[in-house]
Amino acid sequence: MGSLGSYTYNDSISTLTIGKVITCKAAVAYGPGQPLVVEEIRVDPPQRMEVRIRVLFTSICHTDLSAWLGENEAQRVYPRILGHEASGLVESVGEGVKDLEVGDHVVPIFNGECQKCGHCKSEKTNLCEKFRVNPLKSTMRSDGKCRFWTKDGRPVYHFLNTSTFSEYTVLDSACAVKIDANAPLEKMTLLSCGVSTGLGAVWNTADVAVGETLAVFGLGAVGLAVVEGARARGASRIIGVDINSDKRIKGLAIGITDFINPKELDKPVHEKIREMTGGGVHYSFECAGNLDVLREAFLSTHDGWGLTVILGIHPTPRLLPLHPMELFDGRRMVGSVFGDFKGKSQLPHFANQCIQGVVKLDEFITHEMPFSKINEALKLLIEGKSLRCLLHL
Amino acid sequence: MGSLGSYTYNDSISTLTIGKVITCKAAVAYGPGQPLVVEEIRVDPPQRMEVRIRVLFTSICHTDLSAWLGENEAQRVYPRILGHEASGLVESVGEGVKDLEVGDHVVPIFNGECQKCGHCKSEKTNLCEKFRVNPLKSTMRSDGKCRFWTKDGRPVYHFLNTSTFSEYTVLDSACAVKIDANAPLEKMTLLSCGVSTGLGAVWNTADVAVGETLAVFGLGAVGLAVVEGARARGASRIIGVDINSDKRIKGLAIGITDFINPKELDKPVHEKIREMTGGGVHYSFECAGNLDVLREAFLSTHDGWGLTVILGIHPTPRLLPLHPMELFDGRRMVGSVFGDFKGKSQLPHFANQCIQGVVKLDEFITHEMPFSKINEALKLLIEGKSLRCLLHL
Repeated sequence: MGSLGSYTYNDSISTLTIGKVITCKAAVAYGPGQPLVVEEIRVDPPQRMEVRIRVLFTSICHTDLSAWLGENEAQRVYPRILGHEASGLVESVGEGVKDLEVGDHVVPIFNGECQKCGHCKSEKTNLCEKFRVNPLKSTMRSDGKCRFWTKDGRPVYHFLNTSTFSEYTVLDSACAVKIDANAPLEKMTLLSCGVSTGLGAVWNTADVAVGETLAVFGLGAVGLAVVEGARARGASRIIGVDINSDKRIKGLAIGITDFINPKELDKPVHEKIREMTGGGVHYSFECAGNLDVLREAFLSTHDGWGLTVILGIHPTPRLLPLHPMELFDGRRMVGSVFGDFKGKSQLPHFANQCIQGVVKLDEFITHEMPFSKINEALKLLIEGKSLRCLLHL
Repeated sequence: MGSLGSYTYNDSISTLTIGKVITCKAAVAYGPGQPLVVEEIRVDPPQRMEVRIRVLFTSICHTDLSAWLGENEAQRVYPRILGHEASGLVESVGEGVKDLEVGDHVVPIFNGECQKCGHCKSEKTNLCEKFRVNPLKSTMRSDGKCRFWTKDGRPVYHFLNTSTFSEYTVLDSACAVKIDANAPLEKMTLLSCGVSTGLGAVWNTADVAVGETLAVFGLGAVGLAVVEGARARGASRIIGVDINSDKRIKGLAIGITDFINPKELDKPVHEKIREMTGGGVHYSFECAGNLDVLREAFLSTHDGWGLTVILGIHPTPRLLPLHPMELFDGRRMVGSVFGDFKGKSQLPHFANQCIQGVVKLDEFITHEMPFSKINEALKLLIEGKSLRCLLHL
């Protein structure tokens, strides 16, 4: 029994279920926008190079919301178990798995790392050939089948290599990261996506240095993780931008030095930011998923060396609102997936940095409730009332 | 009297003209597409921090063509002296000029370097605050006036900080680079623009390493300079792409390992290149100034680490033909101005590398003729018959 702050959890695991089908609770999506149904499902044992995980905590990210709402028609596959931010324990491992054992504390990652392919061996990318993020994938890679079943025997589809809205889930071992047993599991859910994505964009993608300046567009969990990463790196100016002025308070608590609500300005944001910073910030981070915001973010950086990092998902047919000649002013724009972290290799160290207090996670979990109330948690996120709501399974 | 190959020139300079207005020949543009008029003009002495240059050789680049044709309406200023690729001797220097003396061998640069501003002091950019390339600029920076006059006293406008279609021209000292007196001046014209732009994009912008692979879209002088830069760096695969199959021969002479004419393919170029290279090249270089080509160049690179460098000028209102989500595949795109060379600081060394044979310039000058035949030289370039035609002044 571990206890940290207001959280308690049982970190021992039974071995009685190894090799057997497990019946447990999951929140199943049956159609776009339909309330998730918390019901009993069956979970197969892990196959070769897979692991089965007892999920202890899960939280909800906007990507779950988008999939739940069926925003992208090609991704509408039902019934399906969503969820990709979580933490838990290894219940059993499939044949061939060497780096994980029963009882290990783990964090699932939607952007896996096989550690063997050309991409994984390259220092330039974290996009594994086999297990990189793929929103269209809905079955296990090895056999194209599901490990989840409804009680009446219908397959239940997987989501983002993870499917964490379930007491038990099956992952490719490339998508499960072992972390120090002393790391607070309830906060480690943040490493599965939001915090790693934002903080990694600062540390890995942009590589922000002491004294540099940045602007963060959109102060949700990812944007605030950018702020935390920049604070930890010693940035001299961290400008938060959001159309919701309530975000200012949380932003200040984490580390913004300035706040701008574009609705309260009589000029474009980029002009204001250039005035404030003598020509523009070194870096801007787009965490809003809006192309007009992306253009403002781009123009907010300094000519000659400005870098804009795209983190937001842009579910629009519109193309980049940039003229090719604008790239000749020396501003650059890059995308960042999972903060350019190689999950299996680098998250364990990141978890240690959280334990040591280099990175502070206290501000990100704003709500918690039992798993059975998952539809309430969805609502909180939709309404912008929560950053992360922690669900106890 | 110097002599190199078929070229001869007088590299001594008279001091009798110092401080006086010089009457000399220039090729003056009087309107879009109108034949240049080679006539006598008057050239003022250099003002503070300016130098007057005796131009010995000049060549013609597509940017001159574009300005001559008046493709961009905002740049239609007449009468004007075009030209920005040249080499020559310092005839006289204005007050305050410390780094140049009468008789120095010099190359004009359209993208100047004051060596004092924040941009010049940054290692991240070659875009000087004061003297960076500016196609809209048509007078001297210090007083907003012209140094050229028609014989009847009308001002003649400047072009790209250089205006080299004249026996004498006045430059800001930030736009004149002193090179070793042993460098072959007739070939040094190539360092003013085309070769520096292409080769620098490989060496500085992309920083291509031994054994890496690339594709070059458009095998004009800039594209071939990319090829030469890649050959000198030891690239393992250099794929030339051009819709004119005649370019293959020159490409092979310089260093391409493969040639593709997109018109002869039954699939998009990027598919062919991915097949040839196991997923795509490390780098692609867009030297054609065409947005559809730019998209092919982007898609020709390998996911995870591919970098596309834009060198071509895109005189179109169309925006970048990329979806923001495409940047999440780890491909990047950047612009490169003047090959990211800091002209004053770095071209002297580059000139020495040409003397030493590290860089080979032999293939780039395909024609030569007296300055009086400049309209014939323009025609050769328009018709794609010349790479560079060297004009002797």
